[in-house]
Amino acid sequence: MPKPKKVCIIGSGNWGSAIAKIVGSNAERLDYVDNRITMYVYEEMVEGRKLTEIINETHENVKYLPGHKLPPNVVAIPDVVEAADGADILIFVIPHQFIRNICAALIGRIKPDAVGLSLIKGFDRVEGGAIDLISNTISRLLKIQVCVLMGANLANEVAAGMFCETTIGCKDKRVAPLLRDLIQTENFKVVVVDDVNAVEACGALKNIIAVGVGFVDGLGYGDNTKAAVIRLGLMEMIKFVDIFFPGSRLSTFFESCGVADLITTCFGGRNRRVGEAFIKTGKSIEVLEKELLNGQKLQGPITAAEVNFMLKNRGMEARFPLMTAVHRICTGEMKAADLLDHVRNHPEHM
Amino acid sequence: MPKPKKVCIIGSGNWGSAIAKIVGSNAERLDYVDNRITMYVYEEMVEGRKLTEIINETHENVKYLPGHKLPPNVVAIPDVVEAADGADILIFVIPHQFIRNICAALIGRIKPDAVGLSLIKGFDRVEGGAIDLISNTISRLLKIQVCVLMGANLANEVAAGMFCETTIGCKDKRVAPLLRDLIQTENFKVVVVDDVNAVEACGALKNIIAVGVGFVDGLGYGDNTKAAVIRLGLMEMIKFVDIFFPGSRLSTFFESCGVADLITTCFGGRNRRVGEAFIKTGKSIEVLEKELLNGQKLQGPITAAEVNFMLKNRGMEARFPLMTAVHRICTGEMKAADLLDHVRNHPEHM
Repeated sequence: MPKPKKVCIIGSGNWGSAIAKIVGSNAERLDYVDNRITMYVYEEMVEGRKLTEIINETHENVKYLPGHKLPPNVVAIPDVVEAADGADILIFVIPHQFIRNICAALIGRIKPDAVGLSLIKGFDRVEGGAIDLISNTISRLLKIQVCVLMGANLANEVAAGMFCETTIGCKDKRVAPLLRDLIQTENFKVVVVDDVNAVEACGALKNIIAVGVGFVDGLGYGDNTKAAVIRLGLMEMIKFVDIFFPGSRLSTFFESCGVADLITTCFGGRNRRVGEAFIKTGKSIEVLEKELLNGQKLQGPITAAEVNFMLKNRGMEARFPLMTAVHRICTGEMKAADLLDHVRNHPEHM
Repeated sequence: MPKPKKVCIIGSGNWGSAIAKIVGSNAERLDYVDNRITMYVYEEMVEGRKLTEIINETHENVKYLPGHKLPPNVVAIPDVVEAADGADILIFVIPHQFIRNICAALIGRIKPDAVGLSLIKGFDRVEGGAIDLISNTISRLLKIQVCVLMGANLANEVAAGMFCETTIGCKDKRVAPLLRDLIQTENFKVVVVDDVNAVEACGALKNIIAVGVGFVDGLGYGDNTKAAVIRLGLMEMIKFVDIFFPGSRLSTFFESCGVADLITTCFGGRNRRVGEAFIKTGKSIEVLEKELLNGQKLQGPITAAEVNFMLKNRGMEARFPLMTAVHRICTGEMKAADLLDHVRNHPEHM
């Protein structure tokens, strides 16, 4: 019998902790998965104690997922190299701006045949005025295969065991069932597709659309307009993938990572909420991040800037009027009230 | 120069009146459309006066679209044969249970080369234990070409001129631009596709899904679950069209008639609202129709029954677990609390 696979979770925020709860519990019943799950935790002090100590003693991430017990086989480790040591599967779930530093620490320190699973939403700026998917950056830096997981998955609801779906993008037919079984539960249903790039692009791009929908709400427009903006956003997501990651399939956008995640993000979610507050208060995104998000960065405006960076370099802004408008409104280059003028003659209507 | 086209709107409810506002206004500026738009109004007394008289004198449908003025070139006529006399374009916008009687009255009384445009959402029971699209029934009875218009179009918002999109399904390349220009405005954007059956099926089926989403809300499940149920509903809509109206394209489901209308209906809309109340109050659909809808029939449960009638006859209920569950919960055959058990092992997860 082959040696059980060792799994390491790199990240311990809200979403990372929810996934640790699932993976730890599944590891206990799957005999081909090592029972001990390591979780890299960025060390910080919480009420005078180290967060790793609290997690390992109380089995609760009191800072980022309070109220949910992690299985005792999930072990918090403050050193990423130690956490990843000997791991066959590396689950990346950290804010995307930290990925290059984490990878730098891991180069040459992981198993050469390890498989990555990225839950990170965003893009990475690369040479030539372009952006690339985070999974490609990890893959390039660590020289390993990287799959992705994206879906309509608010972390607290997943941790609470409420029914939902998710999408894994994985091209490798040997690896796919392993990842699926590691993640799937009776209430967390996995669909695996091989269209990795489209799955990941959806996860990043939807945050831009949600900011735009927040503007629509803030401006007091109705449900019809909101539905139209969501749909036009979806069409821009499809076109973006078609141009920059060709070979994807339309059917992928019907998976949980596509239309379902877009819906959840555009009705719930912080990007929509801050977008609405941006209009109603007249405050800048930075100020709202301080006031509403405790200083955390909002993904939508960052992703809009990354996407715009590439679109502008390629002279393609006019082909993506909604994403372009969201970026310009966030930066103050355009008035929010002009949003609809920007999408009223959308290429989709030609 | 060819004679201007005469247009008749058959129906004068909330949606019919909103469309009359648009068509009447467009007719005033399009030289190939006759300026006089006839509107068949089912005659009823409103505060002691005939509704047709009120509309023709005040240019307001005070009963079904109060607060919005119709253009003066829209003429209300209580006799459908008189209204349709000489019309080149017949716009059908009545509750679907009345369509056979209306067609019966019109047989042999309309121009043989007239074109129909159906805005009606629902199915019609036909021979052989099957159901058919309303446009096909109209087409068969009146022996005319029938196109369809569906989309994320709450009538009051359309009447108020708020920005939205809609989808016209039309196979005839000569007719399509005519219909588009008759309907399109600066804030009511039309996309024409030739996939007529899929456009129409979306308009009917989405009401079933919205009832199911109402159940999810009533049961207190979260946003993830709601997104999963909407997505699974969309997948069942796609499969339904694929089986019963083969030859449709996946891209049609990304139009306003598809994903956008589904979103609007599943977040706003009466089907969701009554579905939620059904769970929270324990009252029957019939009682809720009386209490919440002033006795009007809710489309979702009716459409669910029609769809189930065909699925049951074909032994296909298990392939459509969500639509089947919605029907059974509405009729009391199944407990609402069992809804998720029904979709947890959905064919989409196999």
